[in-house]
Amino acid sequence: MEQRLTMVTLGVRDLARARAFYEEGLGWTLGDGVEGQVAFYDLGGMLLGLYGLEALAEDAKTALAELSPGRNFGGMTLAYNVRDKAAVDATLKEAEAAGATLLKAAEEVFWGGYSGYFADPDGHPWEVAFNPFWTLNDDGSVSLPKKD
Amino acid sequence: MEQRLTMVTLGVRDLARARAFYEEGLGWTLGDGVEGQVAFYDLGGMLLGLYGLEALAEDAKTALAELSPGRNFGGMTLAYNVRDKAAVDATLKEAEAAGATLLKAAEEVFWGGYSGYFADPDGHPWEVAFNPFWTLNDDGSVSLPKKD
Repeated sequence: MEQRLTMVTLGVRDLARARAFYEEGLGWTLGDGVEGQVAFYDLGGMLLGLYGLEALAEDAKTALAELSPGRNFGGMTLAYNVRDKAAVDATLKEAEAAGATLLKAAEEVFWGGYSGYFADPDGHPWEVAFNPFWTLNDDGSVSLPKKD
Repeated sequence: MEQRLTMVTLGVRDLARARAFYEEGLGWTLGDGVEGQVAFYDLGGMLLGLYGLEALAEDAKTALAELSPGRNFGGMTLAYNVRDKAAVDATLKEAEAAGATLLKAAEEVFWGGYSGYFADPDGHPWEVAFNPFWTLNDDGSVSLPKKD
């Protein structure tokens, strides 16, 4: 597993409110996303994602009962993108061999990619993903699709 | 606030175990740190940090009662580094004006820097920090001290 990070995803209870905070409040520019569902910000080769808290927990197969939406810690995942499906499987196996816990075996996902999740020894969730719509550059940085 | 991220810090219950996972298990190279206390990995201009879960919660002034160490979500913070102390204060004010909640007013911290924390509308904790020992490049990327 290369020493890099593709995305930090923040689980949010109200996407419009969260987008308003980052875009209108802090002045950030939306890079990609699906209106009302998910938002991505390019932080210079890696991304910050905003996604529904419950959907994020479901995606990572993390029990909702373990989420306490009102607290200050929680609902954050890390993502490591790779170049093809085989690399997703290989990376998950490598992480398990290193002592990680498999949270979700890799599968085809609704947005058109292929991904699984492992938890590091402290339970921090890492998604390992192949996303055919994003360009993973040679240095591991990610480029979002150009907007028309 | 510029559109960038300096560090993701993972709160860990056993630093040696966590370091073994990332270094021996995944093959990552330690970039900086204090033996037995904190470890930093250079992910290409931004960092992954490993730090004690309770110390991280204390640093962010997040109530320990809100942490459930056994769960899969939690104990992760984001950091945004700036170039001087005044910029820490200014960034915290900007975030508050944008609707963030101040978790900790900026103060001199034991490791020699100056930092405070805000929570975004979903409670995700952002540290805003000035670290005199790290170089913040013009593009916002961070460079760790060269090792002897």
